[in-house]
Amino acid sequence: MSITKIPVGILGATGMVGQRFIQLLENHPWFEVAWLAASDRSSGKSYAEAAKWRMRTAIPKKVAKLKVSAASPEGAPKVIFAALDSDIARELEPQFAEAGCAVISNSSAYRMDPSVPLVIPEVNPEHLKLIETQTWWKKSKGFMVTNSNCSIMGLTIALAPLQKAFGLESVFAVTMQAVSGAGYPGVASLDILGNVIPFIKNEEEKMQEEAHKLLGRLKGKQVEMAHFGMSAHCNRVPVEDGHTESISVKLRKKASAEKIIAAWREFRGSSEVARLPHAPAEPIFYDERPDRPQPRFDVDRGKGMTTTVGRLRPCSLLDWKFTVLSHNTIRGAAGAAVLNAELLKVRGYLG
Amino acid sequence: MSITKIPVGILGATGMVGQRFIQLLENHPWFEVAWLAASDRSSGKSYAEAAKWRMRTAIPKKVAKLKVSAASPEGAPKVIFAALDSDIARELEPQFAEAGCAVISNSSAYRMDPSVPLVIPEVNPEHLKLIETQTWWKKSKGFMVTNSNCSIMGLTIALAPLQKAFGLESVFAVTMQAVSGAGYPGVASLDILGNVIPFIKNEEEKMQEEAHKLLGRLKGKQVEMAHFGMSAHCNRVPVEDGHTESISVKLRKKASAEKIIAAWREFRGSSEVARLPHAPAEPIFYDERPDRPQPRFDVDRGKGMTTTVGRLRPCSLLDWKFTVLSHNTIRGAAGAAVLNAELLKVRGYLG
Amino acid sequence: MSITKIPVGILGATGMVGQRFIQLLENHPWFEVAWLAASDRSSGKSYAEAAKWRMRTAIPKKVAKLKVSAASPEGAPKVIFAALDSDIARELEPQFAEAGCAVISNSSAYRMDPSVPLVIPEVNPEHLKLIETQTWWKKSKGFMVTNSNCSIMGLTIALAPLQKAFGLESVFAVTMQAVSGAGYPGVASLDILGNVIPFIKNEEEKMQEEAHKLLGRLKGKQVEMAHFGMSAHCNRVPVEDGHTESISVKLRKKASAEKIIAAWREFRGSSEVARLPHAPAEPIFYDERPDRPQPRFDVDRGKGMTTTVGRLRPCSLLDWKFTVLSHNTIRGAAGAAVLNAELLKVRGYLG
Amino acid sequence: MSITKIPVGILGATGMVGQRFIQLLENHPWFEVAWLAASDRSSGKSYAEAAKWRMRTAIPKKVAKLKVSAASPEGAPKVIFAALDSDIARELEPQFAEAGCAVISNSSAYRMDPSVPLVIPEVNPEHLKLIETQTWWKKSKGFMVTNSNCSIMGLTIALAPLQKAFGLESVFAVTMQAVSGAGYPGVASLDILGNVIPFIKNEEEKMQEEAHKLLGRLKGKQVEMAHFGMSAHCNRVPVEDGHTESISVKLRKKASAEKIIAAWREFRGSSEVARLPHAPAEPIFYDERPDRPQPRFDVDRGKGMTTTVGRLRPCSLLDWKFTVLSHNTIRGAAGAAVLNAELLKVRGYLG
Repeated sequence: MSITKIPVGILGATGMVGQRFIQLLENHPWFEVAWLAASDRSSGKSYAEAAKWRMRTAIPKKVAKLKVSAASPEGAPKVIFAALDSDIARELEPQFAEAGCAVISNSSAYRMDPSVPLVIPEVNPEHLKLIETQTWWKKSKGFMVTNSNCSIMGLTIALAPLQKAFGLESVFAVTMQAVSGAGYPGVASLDILGNVIPFIKNEEEKMQEEAHKLLGRLKGKQVEMAHFGMSAHCNRVPVEDGHTESISVKLRKKASAEKIIAAWREFRGSSEVARLPHAPAEPIFYDERPDRPQPRFDVDRGKGMTTTVGRLRPCSLLDWKFTVLSHNTIRGAAGAAVLNAELLKVRGYLG
Repeated sequence: MSITKIPVGILGATGMVGQRFIQLLENHPWFEVAWLAASDRSSGKSYAEAAKWRMRTAIPKKVAKLKVSAASPEGAPKVIFAALDSDIARELEPQFAEAGCAVISNSSAYRMDPSVPLVIPEVNPEHLKLIETQTWWKKSKGFMVTNSNCSIMGLTIALAPLQKAFGLESVFAVTMQAVSGAGYPGVASLDILGNVIPFIKNEEEKMQEEAHKLLGRLKGKQVEMAHFGMSAHCNRVPVEDGHTESISVKLRKKASAEKIIAAWREFRGSSEVARLPHAPAEPIFYDERPDRPQPRFDVDRGKGMTTTVGRLRPCSLLDWKFTVLSHNTIRGAAGAAVLNAELLKVRGYLG
Repeated sequence: MSITKIPVGILGATGMVGQRFIQLLENHPWFEVAWLAASDRSSGKSYAEAAKWRMRTAIPKKVAKLKVSAASPEGAPKVIFAALDSDIARELEPQFAEAGCAVISNSSAYRMDPSVPLVIPEVNPEHLKLIETQTWWKKSKGFMVTNSNCSIMGLTIALAPLQKAFGLESVFAVTMQAVSGAGYPGVASLDILGNVIPFIKNEEEKMQEEAHKLLGRLKGKQVEMAHFGMSAHCNRVPVEDGHTESISVKLRKKASAEKIIAAWREFRGSSEVARLPHAPAEPIFYDERPDRPQPRFDVDRGKGMTTTVGRLRPCSLLDWKFTVLSHNTIRGAAGAAVLNAELLKVRGYLG
Repeated sequence: MSITKIPVGILGATGMVGQRFIQLLENHPWFEVAWLAASDRSSGKSYAEAAKWRMRTAIPKKVAKLKVSAASPEGAPKVIFAALDSDIARELEPQFAEAGCAVISNSSAYRMDPSVPLVIPEVNPEHLKLIETQTWWKKSKGFMVTNSNCSIMGLTIALAPLQKAFGLESVFAVTMQAVSGAGYPGVASLDILGNVIPFIKNEEEKMQEEAHKLLGRLKGKQVEMAHFGMSAHCNRVPVEDGHTESISVKLRKKASAEKIIAAWREFRGSSEVARLPHAPAEPIFYDERPDRPQPRFDVDRGKGMTTTVGRLRPCSLLDWKFTVLSHNTIRGAAGAAVLNAELLKVRGYLG
């Protein structure tokens, strides 16, 4: 019954990730979209008028009629999903945390802030403790939690069991990223039809730094960054959804293909995490077919929350090579934030 | 005047690379297509009937009317371009060399044979000397010369000046390859529209071994393979022509970005090579724009014979990262073989 | 419980439509896939080995293990879905009908045969009566029923309520058809990436003749073809699934936009048909957005069984113009046959 | 020698059509780009800085260094090519004509103005006489001439010889238009990858009205619109360049396929027009292959100035059906304006 659901708001509700939030939260057992904010030009319109809806499912009827609010904390619910451009996020998100909101953000603005947790529930849920070091928390029980960039998300999930079982020494990553990662209108068709663009602004830097925080260890009140070498090349390809990545790794301990595959297949979040509504039954699916994963066929595995790995084989330079595929706007953005919110809820952070 | 031109034949004339040979040899100053062979089912038809022509220019009129011959040396000219599938090449090419033909092959069958030169005129022209070690040469002045796989061609050209100036220690390569590399019909549209296929059979192996032979040194009557570590990941993307590659390298000597770019820009074949009709004015073009090279816009540079390099930047794992783009059916296949033939001609190997 | 389900077989089980049959019949309340046949080269293999599975969902586990049989009626179940190339269908399908099977065919071979019903359950279910005129039926209770070509299916559904309410005088249709309509491997990527192919063999002829039979009237023991002029142009476009069609019509009676849209929105099959498991809640959805329908966003409406119509506006040459979109391998092929089978079942034809 | 060339300016120089103007005018025998104007934000920058260059050839060196001027007639040359959005054109173009400039415009703003010629040199060169009715001409020898919309250009060229030989009664046209027709950034990749958009704002209206003016007859000081019925459906498809159109026509006189094809093949502009630098040797090429024309392979015929027609066959509703392909940013935009300028020059209108 919806009376018992927690009302949530979405900042940046008309963009691609905002739309994914609305799609994923339709019929959510715990949360209910009650408030939407977007840029000034949308404010006051109904959501159906304001958004150029680009999802394959229809706009949920109740959401279609919601009036788009101005992006300020007055009148906003206490749980806020944020899908804002970085410079806008930098300004707006603290205002909501200040006002006592739980800000569950997909934006990059505060991901590397030492007091802001950058969390993947299956990988580093203990980082949530950082919340309690935030000034906002102390003052108003408001806080901020972030999820990672879409290009490092699936890779980090694939690396986590390797780090645990064998230790990570170095990681080489080349991405082939979907256009939905650039938002809407985003990449012009004249730029990408039949083309590859070997450049995505700031993406290589984000991948490298976020990986070290995600795989780092909470020591007291701060995260000790993980120690491993990493180099990323980021490319855009004419794919709608799903980032495919060619990965080579050097491990600290000797591993066999069998053990690596077993580590992936057995990888689960804690039982607390595994029971969350958006937690995939298998966080990682290892596909044995020689030509998989492929975005067109595998991106929706686990409703877009499962990372698919394939093609494990020896690397003549580092130790092992493989391919990772992850849904960039679900597991890599809106779904990640929803899963974070679910974990926050069961841990009692949502009041 | 065509009476003075050298008549040449094409084995595998109806395939994609065969069609490129015909396109590139139209109006060639030295060579004239005089004989075409294809599979039995084409034999006896006119070329226009036998081939499903897929080039953007029209079939040259004289070629359109040529009758397709059976693929045997009787009646064939003494200079043969071969564009055959590997297992057919393995059987047929030696028959032509045996019969006294110069077999200039794009096939992979004999590339790694110790007595068969694998040549890029700007890079290792001296390897042609191997011809004189071939039994065919001794018996009939027939011989075989090969060019490399399309995925290693542009990369080798980009590596050659680095090897010379700084020494190569290791090379990491991830390819995003065009569909024309798989021939016709080749990749099914249902497999590649909006998709990435992270697998091309035997391609990673070929890249790794051919690179070492191409960059190796002729010592007496054999090629000493180059010593450097190399690892390749090969992917197919929905691009018509042009293989884009994300590359990281470790060099033996310290280099600066300026010196590397200068090495690329100054790279030229010998003056003998630079004057060949198909030699590009610039074998390597370094593009300073932050988001280049891109296949849609850069693949035809130097009529498809120039390798475009861009995005040089430090690599946190090896030393330097960059992107390479090369036309896979021109520089990486038919154009490579034509350039080899031109070099053979000026060196007196074509009789 | 599966013991009560009707076992069904699939002829041509490894092709694109065969795969759709398997996908749609997974968890079907009445039917259970019990037998699969394909070409000789697949025979004896498990289905998982024999098929190059191209659906986005996984192969149902029980089906994966089924052994592929030879394509002959011995050992086959009494209900057969057929997804064969036309010339093979012409030979094989009668053998199954002869042997007492219900042959529910997606092939074009017998669609225009006067004794074979060509049926869309919402449009002309009464044509099923033709079964009883078939010699097979009389001898063995075997029979044959067909569904239409993928390119005329959605259009016929959109035309049916117009024919009923206003009468049809003429229909102009230009299709932009998805590559999945050509099967697998089907259209080569080199032919369709960034391209339009203005030709699909025999497609315009099929559209024109099948439309007249589908919208014809059963008079005694035969179908009187509908009387209206029709002209079709068929094009292939780089779209995975979903045929989009630009349509102009001339009606016999004056109509208004409101009345036409109402006719579409109110269109339902009989209550018998509306209760069938694969019958969409709305056979036709009229989308008021000015730039819809679009295959990427609308093709899956009603699980691929709903035809989406949009852009109704006056035609300065005929009376009205509009755009139709229909899923070509679901509503236009496998889903159509499954719906036919469901109707046959409730009418008692499946024994 | 460039001293004798006529200096020309380009309004809207940074857009897609502006870039095509620059590409086509490189090495033009009569004209030299001497002045470029764009929006205020570009003004003062060098062209290389201001434009996001999207052509496959490089920016001509002299143009790269030209400073972008403000869009006002002061300092502008007397021959102006205009590639402006319609509402900006409506305001700016008259200012240039007023100031004594020849405004050769690709914009739609004044195409249907009774005193402004809408001209295709091979089709209706006599319409240029309208210039002399323009107030600007009388006052300052300034004037305005336009070319048609990209979607009606190739079709009109294909219709002109049919109109002349057989008379036109009605025309049915369905377009499949390339993304470059929408400018840059234009169509978002998320909107068009693997998709068809059945709507282009105002395009159907423009096609219908411009066709009647182009094929109309100059009677004294005005154009008498041609009399024929016409209906257009416009669609966007994922193609880079080249509008493909499925056409049916009803003719006033009986025609045979042979006569129609002969009319197309023999179609030439006047000898005055045929000698213009950008006039294609063949304005229309009829391709007999059953599956042509196709944009990927045929769009560049005649350097993008030839219209390719194919698939002539009877239409069961009107008389004949065929497919037309025309390059939308060359023949359908910049090339059309350049050809108009060339005709104006030989007729003495450029001073």
